[in-house]
Amino acid sequence: MAVTTLYMSDRDPEKRTFTDKKEADALDKKLEFAENLRVFLETRIVGLDEEKAEEIGLLIADYKDEMITALKGKPEVLTNIGKESDNVKSIDAVKNAS
Amino acid sequence: MAVTTLYMSDRDPEKRTFTDKKEADALDKKLEFAENLRVFLETRIVGLDEEKAEEIGLLIADYKDEMITALKGKPEVLTNIGKESDNVKSIDAVKNAS
Repeated sequence: MAVTTLYMSDRDPEKRTFTDKKEADALDKKLEFAENLRVFLETRIVGLDEEKAEEIGLLIADYKDEMITALKGKPEVLTNIGKESDNVKSIDAVKNAS
Repeated sequence: MAVTTLYMSDRDPEKRTFTDKKEADALDKKLEFAENLRVFLETRIVGLDEEKAEEIGLLIADYKDEMITALKGKPEVLTNIGKESDNVKSIDAVKNAS
């Protein structure tokens, strides 16, 4: 018998497990950011519902590097997201076609 | 007669003018970020209306430094916004009371 160590973020409703602790840490940070941004937006944007605030938090966390670059004075990176990669484009196309 | 040089961001609906070009540049970058984030969110969050997407863009641009810090792995800064300053709190209180 062998025992494997698995790591899981306790914020993750999907209870995803990782053998690499770094990956679990990264997911935990992402979910913490999304949760905190949700609360931040909900308390400041009148009429924004919880579900949308949560989606926005996760979306911004997904594009962390682009957001940092945009906030640091290169906002044009936001308009290029999804354009530079053919893979992303084709996935979008598949989604739109279905 | 004397002529003063004024700077204005052509994105600014309020047409605010600055004698310091750096300040006008900073406002222009902020408005460009907010506009690009609005488009980014509108195209990805189903049912999010334009007005709210714009408010979110401006709000995140207003808290640029905190957002960068949060995205870089310290999401807890988002929960502290407005707490460390008594001035900000009292302005909020005035708004809520009106």
